[in-house]
Amino acid sequence: ADVKKIAVLAGDGIGPEVVAEAEKVLKKTEELFGYQFETAHGLFGGIAIDEKGTPLPQETLDLCKNADAVLLGAVGGPKWDNNAKELRPETGLLGIRKALGLFSNIRPATVFDCLKEASTLKPEVLEGTDLIVVRELTGGIYFGEKFRREGANGQEAVDTCVYNVTEVERIVRQAFDIARTRRKKLASVDKANVLETSRLWREVVNRIAPEYPDVEVEHVLVDNCAMQLLRRPSSFDVIVTENMFGDILSDEAAMLTGSIGMLSSASLGEGSFGLYEPVHGSAPDIAGQGISNPIATVLSVALMFRLTFGYEDAAASIENAVKEVLDAGHRTGDIAVDKSKAIGTTAMGDLIIAAM
Amino acid sequence: ADVKKIAVLAGDGIGPEVVAEAEKVLKKTEELFGYQFETAHGLFGGIAIDEKGTPLPQETLDLCKNADAVLLGAVGGPKWDNNAKELRPETGLLGIRKALGLFSNIRPATVFDCLKEASTLKPEVLEGTDLIVVRELTGGIYFGEKFRREGANGQEAVDTCVYNVTEVERIVRQAFDIARTRRKKLASVDKANVLETSRLWREVVNRIAPEYPDVEVEHVLVDNCAMQLLRRPSSFDVIVTENMFGDILSDEAAMLTGSIGMLSSASLGEGSFGLYEPVHGSAPDIAGQGISNPIATVLSVALMFRLTFGYEDAAASIENAVKEVLDAGHRTGDIAVDKSKAIGTTAMGDLIIAAM
Ligand SMILES: CC(C)[C@H](C(=O)O)[C@@H](O)C(=O)O
Ligand SMILES: CC(C)[C@H](C(=O)O)[C@@H](O)C(=O)O
Repeated sequence: ADVKKIAVLAGDGIGPEVVAEAEKVLKKTEELFGYQFETAHGLFGGIAIDEKGTPLPQETLDLCKNADAVLLGAVGGPKWDNNAKELRPETGLLGIRKALGLFSNIRPATVFDCLKEASTLKPEVLEGTDLIVVRELTGGIYFGEKFRREGANGQEAVDTCVYNVTEVERIVRQAFDIARTRRKKLASVDKANVLETSRLWREVVNRIAPEYPDVEVEHVLVDNCAMQLLRRPSSFDVIVTENMFGDILSDEAAMLTGSIGMLSSASLGEGSFGLYEPVHGSAPDIAGQGISNPIATVLSVALMFRLTFGYEDAAASIENAVKEVLDAGHRTGDIAVDKSKAIGTTAMGDLIIAAM
Repeated sequence: ADVKKIAVLAGDGIGPEVVAEAEKVLKKTEELFGYQFETAHGLFGGIAIDEKGTPLPQETLDLCKNADAVLLGAVGGPKWDNNAKELRPETGLLGIRKALGLFSNIRPATVFDCLKEASTLKPEVLEGTDLIVVRELTGGIYFGEKFRREGANGQEAVDTCVYNVTEVERIVRQAFDIARTRRKKLASVDKANVLETSRLWREVVNRIAPEYPDVEVEHVLVDNCAMQLLRRPSSFDVIVTENMFGDILSDEAAMLTGSIGMLSSASLGEGSFGLYEPVHGSAPDIAGQGISNPIATVLSVALMFRLTFGYEDAAASIENAVKEVLDAGHRTGDIAVDKSKAIGTTAMGDLIIAAM
């Protein structure tokens, strides 16, 4: 049988509890659809620092490389915030992206109807908002040379932002491909009036655009995009941008939906391999209380089924189950209007698998 | 008598019409308060490209250097968008900042009560929002080395982000000084978990903070700041950040107030010299129709009076006049609910000087 190997990196804070619910969904999928999964757990992030002295131990990396997909909970917490760079959870995150060649981060910013009220935007502005940010993930200023030096005006720090045409081409093509499956609109975000890397980026987009005559392309400057996301969020379909701009804009886009606790993300490389994780963080303040919301992680499994395994039936089953449970009024504390009626993490997970 | 010299760069699009109203305010101030201004006009931006072959002619720069302050309208338009870099209006903008040593851009994001409805944010979220973004303006990735080179994977583009301690210190001190005159809260925005320049930035903030024990400092990562501006805008007082992050966040902050057409800005260097301009752009689509809103430019004059000349009485007179005119229900088309009752640019200017 075709057994899919999933590396599970639960991570820190609420990571383990939300991942546990996602694993129940994997098991339920086996029962319902006959698919087979083999999961293996690896240490990653703060817990790996504590137990192995590094946020990304070699055995965890090997585990991921041998897997068909990775499910990640969340990493980080105040305990490790003041560590030296090599002993910080986010260094593991950057390391795993680079080591696994995950050059593309895909973040759907969807408005859940039942959570519309949670947005700080007016409902009429949010109406119809359904966009995806495609962020380049292994290039740019994140991975360019960094150093200090002595200059005429005291110590200087330097970061280098580098992009080559190959890197830009692959992410831009992927964004065009995604736009083609949706409303066929691509907004390419850059700062071409200032940056050389942005001018290269824009040239590549313009060169590739004729291969996708069915997709409408607009170039948006990053500062303007930060504004337009607020003014006309529903007019965006797919946004593609470089690493640093994508970091900022994908968080802005996620927050404006009001659904940030429910959003999933995929980080993809060449081929079908992918790493899936909720957009929210490790929420150390509520970890271990059994009150965290597992939905974003459960929906990350649905995204894995769709994008890596091609199990559209199981993906749809999960998404419909989540919708059904929410429509029936069940809420974890973070999304409950009446907090006294909130249910816990495992209760939410149980309801979802029952509805699948 | 102490005659203040003001270099007036009207620029492109609606620039000349809104600047004309601001000049009426200068004249009215002379009558009312006995101050004296000497204005001299210079070509800048697209019009300078057309007439002099460069966006920032030497004589314009000399004019500014001989002045006590600069009043700028707006630059740019589709006509020049596809020009080579040296023949683009924004190249003039970057050039004038560097040449005049304007290392600090100050943008108050204020909510005008009468415009609250224009924001896409819910009024209860916006309530109490009154923040200032202090953006470093002559360093970072804007002015670092930029080039192309051939690499193993095709052509590469490179941008360099550089900051030295001196540059960071002066902008951070200025932000602390401003915070001290306000609600005494400073949010320093960086990406210290990724960038070396951000780590330098954060070190400098932490080193200077003890000199301002009355100011509460928080470090906010740029991606998180893009979210928190949406979630809790009223909790911010002064935000200080580097050039590129400031470009993005100041536009996001301006847009969320709903008052973007009304916002003024100051770019300051050492001493009292400053360049003042509205936050809005050149709006080529409505230029020449006499319908643009001069308020942001008029308020930029008030900012000039306060920050460069120390004419607090005249600054307050302008600000109160604007408030009075708006409270009386007068609106230009951009801010009118009932567009049929909108008044024109000169009518708005006349009402403001009458109310001073
Ligand atoms: C933790 C940090 C390094 C990371 C990033 O900036 O990429 C995070 O913000 C993200 O978006 O996944
Ligand atoms: C036109 C552009 C170069 C400029 C900038 O990025 O600084 C503008 O966006 C601004 O904020 O004044």
